[in-house]
Amino acid sequence: MDSKSGSGTSDQGEPSKREVGMGKVGKRKGSARSETGREPAYTVGLDIGGTKILGALLDPEGEVVGTVRRSTVHGADGLVAGAVQAVRDVVASVGVDLADLAGVGLGIPGIVDHRCGTVKHAVNLGVHDDELPLAELLSAELGGVPVVVENDLNVAAVGAAHVLERAGGERDHEDLAFLALGTGLASGLVLDGQLRRGVSGAAGEIGHIPVDPLGPECTCGQRGCLERFASGKALEAAWPSRHGKPSPVELFEAARAGDQEAIVVKDRFADATASAVRLLVLTTDVRHVVLGGGVAQLGTELLDAVQDALRKQAKASPFLGSLKLAERVRLAPTHVPVAAVGAAVLGRRS
Amino acid sequence: MDSKSGSGTSDQGEPSKREVGMGKVGKRKGSARSETGREPAYTVGLDIGGTKILGALLDPEGEVVGTVRRSTVHGADGLVAGAVQAVRDVVASVGVDLADLAGVGLGIPGIVDHRCGTVKHAVNLGVHDDELPLAELLSAELGGVPVVVENDLNVAAVGAAHVLERAGGERDHEDLAFLALGTGLASGLVLDGQLRRGVSGAAGEIGHIPVDPLGPECTCGQRGCLERFASGKALEAAWPSRHGKPSPVELFEAARAGDQEAIVVKDRFADATASAVRLLVLTTDVRHVVLGGGVAQLGTELLDAVQDALRKQAKASPFLGSLKLAERVRLAPTHVPVAAVGAAVLGRRS
Repeated sequence: MDSKSGSGTSDQGEPSKREVGMGKVGKRKGSARSETGREPAYTVGLDIGGTKILGALLDPEGEVVGTVRRSTVHGADGLVAGAVQAVRDVVASVGVDLADLAGVGLGIPGIVDHRCGTVKHAVNLGVHDDELPLAELLSAELGGVPVVVENDLNVAAVGAAHVLERAGGERDHEDLAFLALGTGLASGLVLDGQLRRGVSGAAGEIGHIPVDPLGPECTCGQRGCLERFASGKALEAAWPSRHGKPSPVELFEAARAGDQEAIVVKDRFADATASAVRLLVLTTDVRHVVLGGGVAQLGTELLDAVQDALRKQAKASPFLGSLKLAERVRLAPTHVPVAAVGAAVLGRRS
Repeated sequence: MDSKSGSGTSDQGEPSKREVGMGKVGKRKGSARSETGREPAYTVGLDIGGTKILGALLDPEGEVVGTVRRSTVHGADGLVAGAVQAVRDVVASVGVDLADLAGVGLGIPGIVDHRCGTVKHAVNLGVHDDELPLAELLSAELGGVPVVVENDLNVAAVGAAHVLERAGGERDHEDLAFLALGTGLASGLVLDGQLRRGVSGAAGEIGHIPVDPLGPECTCGQRGCLERFASGKALEAAWPSRHGKPSPVELFEAARAGDQEAIVVKDRFADATASAVRLLVLTTDVRHVVLGGGVAQLGTELLDAVQDALRKQAKASPFLGSLKLAERVRLAPTHVPVAAVGAAVLGRRS
């Protein structure tokens, strides 16, 4: 099963969205802050992926004041040690003390129980069947700072909402879907300002909605799943990498150069991605759909293609047209590690 | 365009889900209650449909203590007069005074602006292009009691959540999709205890998500929309009424009698409805999907068919199996007018 795989922000390719429950682990001993009840101060967020850990330090106003990047060491011990070091490095880089942290948030693929702060089945991180009490282990190493653990797509959605809101100065509620075009296809949802996890952590799992009864079989056991048309894996199958660059880059280059086959494949991919946007809006009516994941590194070329496809879809349908789908789509911010920022935001709320 | 038509609970067939904004109209003069800030007392909810108005009176504990049913009189004047009389009748029937009402909620098809309390394009009610300030007009006729107006599918979802929660004594948040198998197909969403309207009132508009590229054209201008397979209209097209009973009743009777063609049509319909359930869960991961609308009057026979179809879909997919879709589905309560109850609940929150 490849659900939620590919994920939003990192390059691991594992089931990553199922999580179970609400809470945090860790209680700082001797901290006056937790008793005073005033706004959380600095928080750190980490986005733990298959190859790298990205970290962000938020100041008390929610501004990103430091970032960090480390290679991931697989397995429980390596993960914990790497995460601890990432936290220490990012606070040290801006002269903040560990004791000034109000909380730490982690975004991680795999089956996350956010109530208990545990993760399992993060296969690309070397975490298998046993539940890893990541929040507890990390908190212990960091002097008791509260640690929350969350699914990687959920932190990406929260991070995108945070960054967009600050950039746009919007006074409305944060409201968006983070559509992760990674190896697979899945999304994270922030609705009316609240992270929507769903009762079994499966909210946003749109990659496995069948959209073509005659479509190819999916690894999930169904046929014609949306992920088979709109994902990095789907692109790689339709346009295998030939020149050492990522498949999406080669495809878009070939299309730009006028290769007719590439144009067809590109248009089909853009149409499928547009269908994912349409599906998200017709179900949740989110204000924005933010394109993220590896494929979104194509940048404005991808955005243009998806918006064109949305306008084409709306042409025959005044109803679709009235929803202004193309105007809702945007690219995930790239000037900050958005999932790490989201993890830090959740760390603030803990 | 037939979007949101058929709706959940009444028999009108009009675009009914687009609404714009949060607010209420009406301020009781001289009421001590609004100043004290204590819990709202009695509230009335009305479900205004193309042929009938259903009303419910909730006591301060949220119990349904009275109901009423009137024929709808079309056009602005008739609607307002009918609604006023329905409110007067239901409070009188249990000896409650109009002055004891903390609020009134209306559920109505058409394009509802719940911030302003207006409705337009409720064509089956004789309300056309001009915005009808329904909340204001009704409030004025009812001595200034606050009136809220809401889309009919949204009140159905809120009502179903209220009734299920009270019946089950669940301590968790209300969390469900009300899937209206009316003339058309659409849904209302209550997520984490909150009504989800969406930024343009289009949340739950799943009937117009295409699920088959080779499917029939839809009135919305797209092709292969889910509504073309899972709705009263789709059933009527596949199995026209021959003996004066509603098409779904005749179809299920014929299938029960062993008619092979009927069995095929019934199975296909159940599978399409199961697909709607799957789509709702894979996007929003709601705890329950409640089957409502005219077709749901089939009762347990429909429930069984949809649950069987869900189990069949899950057979090939451990992933789907893990989501326990069949267990999430239930029938809308029939012992109370669920949409009217939902309207009354929103009246309480006003």
